Amino acid sequence: MSIPSPIKITPVGVLHCELHDRFNTPRNYDISEITGTIEIFPDFAEAMADIRPGQKIMVLYFFHQADRDIQKVYPRGDRSRGLTGVFSTRSPMRPNPIAVSEVEVLAVEAGQIEVKGVDALDGTPVVDIKKVV
Amino acid sequence: MSIPSPIKITPVGVLHCELHDRFNTPRNYDISEITGTIEIFPDFAEAMADIRPGQKIMVLYFFHQADRDIQKVYPRGDRSRGLTGVFSTRSPMRPNPIAVSEVEVLAVEAGQIEVKGVDALDGTPVVDIKKVV
Repeated sequence: MSIPSPIKITPVGVLHCELHDRFNTPRNYDISEITGTIEIFPDFAEAMADIRPGQKIMVLYFFHQADRDIQKVYPRGDRSRGLTGVFSTRSPMRPNPIAVSEVEVLAVEAGQIEVKGVDALDGTPVVDIKKVV
Repeated sequence: MSIPSPIKITPVGVLHCELHDRFNTPRNYDISEITGTIEIFPDFAEAMADIRPGQKIMVLYFFHQADRDIQKVYPRGDRSRGLTGVFSTRSPMRPNPIAVSEVEVLAVEAGQIEVKGVDALDGTPVVDIKKVV
């Protein structure tokens, strides 16, 4: 099978949280205490059926507002480190702005996962959730 | 900005390795000693400019042959655990089959990253590479 291009992916949900400004967003999940709710769309209810409070889960977001044409950045805005290829960073700016985050599950209801450790903006599409290794 | 659907992503490279049969593929990267080469397409050469031997990198693959309509699986084929929602597993079968793996960089040449710890099939598209947290 040859490689499909472009690849099409589908939002499975959306993040709701208090973060509306990327300059006030925690730089990474491991330093975030912010809570939020992942709304899972009804078509994907079965896939979330075994998520339980207390678990850590890996969340893949799609940063749909990120600039996809930038291949070098100053990591975390620090110019002393020089321009760095985005594949050596976790910058949201990259050809495919898929972010990999980890959050703690606080509560689960139908179509809703309440989580702690949010490092993405309100309204960010969620494209996958996985077990943490 | 409303959520785009579908989201379009672009392969940035492709994995070359000895794995051709998913039943003989390591179940996860943390148990794999298999080496391979990630070919980065010329359009993305700048983004890989700072990857160095000895680093651990996070690789996002797209499992283009996976069944995207399955929402419950027997994790790792173990029926004793019952059918489990795919968001609680790392099954390749899921709505958006984006895999998150970690590999060790052995060598870097123009457009090629030689790595150890491969758990994906030969010919798998690579959609992103990140720094490991």
